[in-house]
Amino acid sequence: MAAASPQNHLQIGGLIFSEMDQIDFTGPFEVLSRLPDSTFTVFSVDGQPLRDQRGLVLTPEKALDQVRRLDVLLIPGGPGQEALMDEEAVLSFIRAQYSGGAWLLSVCTGALICGAAGLLKGVRATTHWRSMHLLPWFGATPVKERVVRDERMVFSAGVTAGIDGALYLASLLRGESVAQQIQLGMEYAPNPLFNSGTPDTAPPDVLHAARRSTGALTEKREGTARRIAEKLGTCEKPVKERLSQ
Amino acid sequence: MAAASPQNHLQIGGLIFSEMDQIDFTGPFEVLSRLPDSTFTVFSVDGQPLRDQRGLVLTPEKALDQVRRLDVLLIPGGPGQEALMDEEAVLSFIRAQYSGGAWLLSVCTGALICGAAGLLKGVRATTHWRSMHLLPWFGATPVKERVVRDERMVFSAGVTAGIDGALYLASLLRGESVAQQIQLGMEYAPNPLFNSGTPDTAPPDVLHAARRSTGALTEKREGTARRIAEKLGTCEKPVKERLSQ
Repeated sequence: MAAASPQNHLQIGGLIFSEMDQIDFTGPFEVLSRLPDSTFTVFSVDGQPLRDQRGLVLTPEKALDQVRRLDVLLIPGGPGQEALMDEEAVLSFIRAQYSGGAWLLSVCTGALICGAAGLLKGVRATTHWRSMHLLPWFGATPVKERVVRDERMVFSAGVTAGIDGALYLASLLRGESVAQQIQLGMEYAPNPLFNSGTPDTAPPDVLHAARRSTGALTEKREGTARRIAEKLGTCEKPVKERLSQ
Repeated sequence: MAAASPQNHLQIGGLIFSEMDQIDFTGPFEVLSRLPDSTFTVFSVDGQPLRDQRGLVLTPEKALDQVRRLDVLLIPGGPGQEALMDEEAVLSFIRAQYSGGAWLLSVCTGALICGAAGLLKGVRATTHWRSMHLLPWFGATPVKERVVRDERMVFSAGVTAGIDGALYLASLLRGESVAQQIQLGMEYAPNPLFNSGTPDTAPPDVLHAARRSTGALTEKREGTARRIAEKLGTCEKPVKERLSQ
């Protein structure tokens, strides 16, 4: 595979969009921008600055139509993923990059954008724990792991899982030693004070509060996902709460 | 302490600067911008957009002289920390915020900026593993932990440690349940593929390569740190390799 050859310069592209979750992007950027012999290009649909869901201003280098063939395409998530699921220019761009040989690195609900692009049929995938039940609507098999690979697609679970996904992809593209050097440079020896990062480990009251505070967003996501999945025909019998947590 | 009261709106400020390491900032931003009843203001010395050390464009909301009293001041690191150690406007701003009651959250070599501000005398602190030996020059006791608190200063180790430091500070400011909800929302259950995040756990050849590739930067940092520490008079007997790794 050409992209994985250490002889080739890697063209890496990171898609940013309004109302995204910035660390879905900045986490993998931290890793992938350190790959030897590579160029990282930040791009958005129109090439204009935008704000993430908490207001951080992010600025692209290019617009979508200025981006040529990539070896790696980073697709973050966050609430703004919904709007992109209806943007045919974005969806056909992702399809073309993947069929042209690019690796896809999906983070969080970036997986739903891949779903809308029709790339999840028969694929093992993961996403944020709050959206796992939406993956089968696009034909995917949800896997409750932090990083899931299927062919040239690497799926990360929610938000900060993008760092783990990017390190894994770095090891595939440039070898374990390079990935380990990047990890050491980033001093990535995480040691969270609490063990509250998944629905299985969080205290019940914390899980309840998190589910409640994201209820409206999740319902909206479900509506959009169902509509698009039905249009794609990947959604035979959506079972709403099958894997929801 | 007023800042820790749940009744008070928290004013949080994040300093950004050219040649910083973006995730030193975007990691804690992800956590702290989610604190209930708070405002997060991104600022730089001159209020203009800038690039991090890998080229990511970051845009502040304000210039330094437009920032009023803060409850929390985030000070990231990265190579650009050196220039800030000579910027008296930045150093006196940090001193004034701290003496005015703000919490400081230092990430990576942000600790050296605090040192140049004269705030590390007799303080337990940490920083990136590559710069630990510089802390005593500013009168600090280096502590090999991922997050170190001394009074209203919270020090994070290198780069990604800012996420852990920010979650700890979130728990101090708004309680454990809020911090745990933020952690769950971020799905922060890190699971790196390799155990290469510290000099103690990285394979010897990886450590060797990382030390070599950062040799010039470390030497430059040492020169700047020594010059400033000698000016401050905090540097009685620098022992260059005392804690270096």
